[in-house]
Amino acid sequence: MPKNTITKKLWPVALASTLAVSGFTINSDSPAQAAEKSKKNEIRNVIFLIGDGMGPTYTTAYRSFKDNKETPMQEDTSFDKDLVGMQSTYSWDPKESVTDSAAAATSMSAGIKTYNGAIGVDMDKKDVKTVLEQAKENGKSTGLVATSQINHATPASFGAHDHSRENYDAIANDYYDDLINGKHKVDVLLGGGTKYFERKDRNIAEQFKKDGYSYVKTREDMLKDKNKQILGLFGEKEMAKYIDRPETQPTLKEMTNSALDRLDSNKKGFFLMVEGSQIDWAGHDNDVVAAMSDMKSFEESYEAAIEFAKKDKHTLVIATADHSTGGMTMGRDGEYKWDPAPLKAAKKTPDFIAKEIEGGAPVEETLKKYIDLELTPEEIQSVKDAKEKSGKALDIDNAIEKIFDLRSGTGWTTDGHTGEDVTVYAYGPGMEKFAGKIENTDTAKEIFAILEQSKSAFNK
Amino acid sequence: MPKNTITKKLWPVALASTLAVSGFTINSDSPAQAAEKSKKNEIRNVIFLIGDGMGPTYTTAYRSFKDNKETPMQEDTSFDKDLVGMQSTYSWDPKESVTDSAAAATSMSAGIKTYNGAIGVDMDKKDVKTVLEQAKENGKSTGLVATSQINHATPASFGAHDHSRENYDAIANDYYDDLINGKHKVDVLLGGGTKYFERKDRNIAEQFKKDGYSYVKTREDMLKDKNKQILGLFGEKEMAKYIDRPETQPTLKEMTNSALDRLDSNKKGFFLMVEGSQIDWAGHDNDVVAAMSDMKSFEESYEAAIEFAKKDKHTLVIATADHSTGGMTMGRDGEYKWDPAPLKAAKKTPDFIAKEIEGGAPVEETLKKYIDLELTPEEIQSVKDAKEKSGKALDIDNAIEKIFDLRSGTGWTTDGHTGEDVTVYAYGPGMEKFAGKIENTDTAKEIFAILEQSKSAFNK
Repeated sequence: MPKNTITKKLWPVALASTLAVSGFTINSDSPAQAAEKSKKNEIRNVIFLIGDGMGPTYTTAYRSFKDNKETPMQEDTSFDKDLVGMQSTYSWDPKESVTDSAAAATSMSAGIKTYNGAIGVDMDKKDVKTVLEQAKENGKSTGLVATSQINHATPASFGAHDHSRENYDAIANDYYDDLINGKHKVDVLLGGGTKYFERKDRNIAEQFKKDGYSYVKTREDMLKDKNKQILGLFGEKEMAKYIDRPETQPTLKEMTNSALDRLDSNKKGFFLMVEGSQIDWAGHDNDVVAAMSDMKSFEESYEAAIEFAKKDKHTLVIATADHSTGGMTMGRDGEYKWDPAPLKAAKKTPDFIAKEIEGGAPVEETLKKYIDLELTPEEIQSVKDAKEKSGKALDIDNAIEKIFDLRSGTGWTTDGHTGEDVTVYAYGPGMEKFAGKIENTDTAKEIFAILEQSKSAFNK
Repeated sequence: MPKNTITKKLWPVALASTLAVSGFTINSDSPAQAAEKSKKNEIRNVIFLIGDGMGPTYTTAYRSFKDNKETPMQEDTSFDKDLVGMQSTYSWDPKESVTDSAAAATSMSAGIKTYNGAIGVDMDKKDVKTVLEQAKENGKSTGLVATSQINHATPASFGAHDHSRENYDAIANDYYDDLINGKHKVDVLLGGGTKYFERKDRNIAEQFKKDGYSYVKTREDMLKDKNKQILGLFGEKEMAKYIDRPETQPTLKEMTNSALDRLDSNKKGFFLMVEGSQIDWAGHDNDVVAAMSDMKSFEESYEAAIEFAKKDKHTLVIATADHSTGGMTMGRDGEYKWDPAPLKAAKKTPDFIAKEIEGGAPVEETLKKYIDLELTPEEIQSVKDAKEKSGKALDIDNAIEKIFDLRSGTGWTTDGHTGEDVTVYAYGPGMEKFAGKIENTDTAKEIFAILEQSKSAFNK
């Protein structure tokens, strides 16, 4: 364990030692010693991971999903050991008190509250500077990684400005057009969205290429490429869910590592935002199989970030959510049960299976092919009924989801978002700044302060 | 601010100072200095507050409920500033993975996982020592305070042992019969439950009186009484909800302060468990008005505990929940809204109002009397329909609750419990032991360790 980082295990020890010296530590080092020691903890890089829609029920359910049933106690997830607190999520929307992803991401990127749908703009629709832009201004490299289209609300709120999240083309344009000190503001863009970057009216992918960026569209090409600047788009709009993905698409972890490899070459450091975008989409769909699928994907990228930070020693990792989605609950209808076993039996998401059935695949065989459970005749019939009634993937999907909901004991109250606080995880120097109950705006404020300090330490 | 305690505001500072000295603090004090400073932080008293059913949605919703709408940002609740982490809640029940209050309270009182319904017993139904019993063994005074009957699952799991929470009489007997070093194990018992203590087969209240306890049944008598040992029962079974209570019943805060006054006379210190019992009952009933009512009551007692601890300087306060209840969500049916205003307009709980209507009070007038809202004709009609259809309080109650649910945007998925992690708050010396993600069993383990240390410091 590196000496200048502090993990959950050490934290109480360190805090207790501080307390023992009566509340305020009296540092008895000489100024020279202090300066030397203090430099050890300077933050060069910030990796900010956002599990979109990852409310407290998701993080708890995922622990149970991952649990080794052979041991009596549940094992911690990779997030658990770094839990430092929780943050509020509400927005200042005049009509909606529960936030959307754009307002929440703008709070976390710019340190202000704003209205739902706002991309890097305030209540007056004026542009606000983001931590990514500040990092670039300070000479750091920058990256955005997501499993949605890369111009979707969350990454957009770090790298673009628009009065509406719906303006996907304009947001894609911003990534190319907005220059900082004459340079493109995002060095690494990895996610989905060819549709928005290879348009008839404008081919932004081509423009990026002319300016020296690599442009890749497959996992293989991404892994081969060594260029420091890259646009990687692995889907027309969003990428596939983790357990549905084709071999041509990289995982979120692979994109994270690919981004880290490129960004790490800058001695002034980097800022990287990584989003597990589709935890939220699973929540909107009330699909607990997809939710667990993409929690796993997000945990893998968190582990990649932590591994990097452990080696680097000057990297702060923060992970949190923007809000929770779907009103998901562990337990429903009076039953004191939440059983992840049926969810582990799914090899593909209900969405994936439903699309095959919609396309003509036989119901029973297709369910058996992708779900490793002895389904009851009634369960199979419910999917057949959905197919016969409307034939639409959406209805077939809902019928399959219901099987998993009832078997696992998962409840839902909405296809929208919910307002409860979300967990905050932090690792590395500066982690203590995110401890306790904070506002989502505090996240950006602390990162701005860290970037300012980082400038004086690493811009020499 | 006392020097030997550490609040949220100071915590990052202290931790940062520790970090600056590179991970482990090197204490440069002489052994004598260190001993002196260390004694400052010895824990004499432990106040453990349990908000039954108080999951993360409850604590967040309550912040919004309490919020001053005149200011743009939401004000923190009294809990917020002391948030240190979260704890898991699952039990080892062979059939149910989501815990009940008995299993969770036994985990927090004895440090073991057990089955649902277990009162201070393990998976083999064998008695396990509780932190309250250990405190008494060490010569401390002890207290149990609740708004349920005082022999209900949560307090019972600290002061009794039974294979089933349903054995209310046997649990009441335990409070009297189980002696530690020849003395009754609980000095202060305040809550509801005359039915179980003044029984035909046995009058335990009389027995306690003969042994020198005061026995009181009204707020006034409790406040007048100065005896160190007391049994106070303010209802046949449970006490009334906070906003429904008659003047003859004390608030949870008043009971907490009354307990603290009595327990504080022991120089060896005390252990006090305080339960906000009916947050959970509101959740079971899917009654968000009652949930906010009893969150307020619980917050008031938390504030009383913190006030005591601030003055005392040797008191550790911990507050947490045993699980969440009802699958309550802020937002429902696709709406991005949670509005507490309609809930603040309720002067009594739907239960209270429904009972009056069941008893013959006219629907419209009664609703107007107790709910400060312009109800729509449809809303009034829905309650009239419920009265005409069944006339039962339960159905009338449900109709009134539905008005509040729809107006506030509150969703529910169950009349039982749910499995998500719950928040942990801590204040005072030792608070760092509860930081990060912990198991509910860790809570008891840490308190046992604290009691052991406390013995050597205060039993001289």
